Amino acid sequence: MSEPGDAPPSDPSPGARVGGPQQRQARALATRSAILAAAAEEFAAASYHEASLSRILERSKVTKGALYFHFVSKESIASAIVDEMEELCRDLVVRARSKGGDPLRVAAQVAREVQDALAGPVLRAGQRLCSEGFAGPQRPGWPFTFWQEVFGGLFADAQRAGLLAPGVDHVPLARAIVDISAGAFVTSLGVSGLRDLAMRVCQNWELLLGATADPDWLRDWRAGGGMGAVLGPHLTGGWVVEA
Amino acid sequence: MSEPGDAPPSDPSPGARVGGPQQRQARALATRSAILAAAAEEFAAASYHEASLSRILERSKVTKGALYFHFVSKESIASAIVDEMEELCRDLVVRARSKGGDPLRVAAQVAREVQDALAGPVLRAGQRLCSEGFAGPQRPGWPFTFWQEVFGGLFADAQRAGLLAPGVDHVPLARAIVDISAGAFVTSLGVSGLRDLAMRVCQNWELLLGATADPDWLRDWRAGGGMGAVLGPHLTGGWVVEA
Repeated sequence: MSEPGDAPPSDPSPGARVGGPQQRQARALATRSAILAAAAEEFAAASYHEASLSRILERSKVTKGALYFHFVSKESIASAIVDEMEELCRDLVVRARSKGGDPLRVAAQVAREVQDALAGPVLRAGQRLCSEGFAGPQRPGWPFTFWQEVFGGLFADAQRAGLLAPGVDHVPLARAIVDISAGAFVTSLGVSGLRDLAMRVCQNWELLLGATADPDWLRDWRAGGGMGAVLGPHLTGGWVVEA
Repeated sequence: MSEPGDAPPSDPSPGARVGGPQQRQARALATRSAILAAAAEEFAAASYHEASLSRILERSKVTKGALYFHFVSKESIASAIVDEMEELCRDLVVRARSKGGDPLRVAAQVAREVQDALAGPVLRAGQRLCSEGFAGPQRPGWPFTFWQEVFGGLFADAQRAGLLAPGVDHVPLARAIVDISAGAFVTSLGVSGLRDLAMRVCQNWELLLGATADPDWLRDWRAGGGMGAVLGPHLTGGWVVEA
């Protein structure tokens, strides 16, 4: 709808018909961003069912007409939020890899980057929408298949590099990390509105890495502070927005 | 609405006004059961959002009037399904305990009873509804708080009985089991429509017990076939209803 060079002809935003095509397009993009920012806050704070279009309108300060110009339904807004979440997850994996370190350290850094990203509403909203079945048919199994690929690759590399204890298979380990991470989110959301999530993530990683990493690697990692050092400020709380 | 001795005065089921109060009440209960059985199938196969009241009506062969006599909304039907799930979960814990064995074996048996119960639609529907935020305000944190209590108690007993390896704390272990179990359900639902759930549960328990149980206990447990023996027929598949 707001393709580059294709100014929406009927955008009912205030002033939409004033200015040249480029200005109109910039305004349309700004309107769309305002709606998505408001929607991310709304879907992070409430289930899809409880989330309300009128609260999204209020938060975004956009007219109903402008909202329906950009999105045909609540479901299409949810789908756009999961689009944003997808981009954010791909970016954070690239960022974790760019920081260097062996594959197990990169895996732990991915978990840290996820906690960083949860400070904003997009990942909280997207993860919640996915748990509620709104990943959309264009993304089967999202984000679980994605995380299985990411951690599957990292733990395979770790096994090749001799960083896993003898007898440990990287395939069930990657699945366990995906399961325990998805479950920590759902459980923490249910029992504490995400307040205990970082603590859960820390203890879960300590438990799983403690059980599966090579003893020499583990000694070195623990000397550096282990998962607590990786998660750092998240363990002292602070970012969680009240639901 | 269908309290004992209090025949619904306006139950519009066929023949509702025929017969004495006891017969009318029996018919009302049968109608309610038929609606809940159909709703469990529907909510197990679709998200709350996708689930349709007209398909529930079709499946239950109940009139729209009868449905609205018993339930005011789709949400109230979902809440009744979670009521049934709650009863089922409490029963299966009692059943697992009644089979005897040490606390770690009872914990593993609880996981087996959960797999048994997933053959019916009530637990699949209830678990899905809870992940989607429909546990209801009368059950804060359900079912996660319940499972934390159950596994928290069992692993505390296991630690007291010397069944955990030195240095293992039962509290994070119980949380990890709750997280990984909730996550296995959500992830398996997302990636395989629950077809790989029993395999995930088996590998997750092997990994976590392998990391935390006392070595002597573990040797004995593995000699008996470990988690594979506990889960038995579930690992060869068969019960999963297509979503």
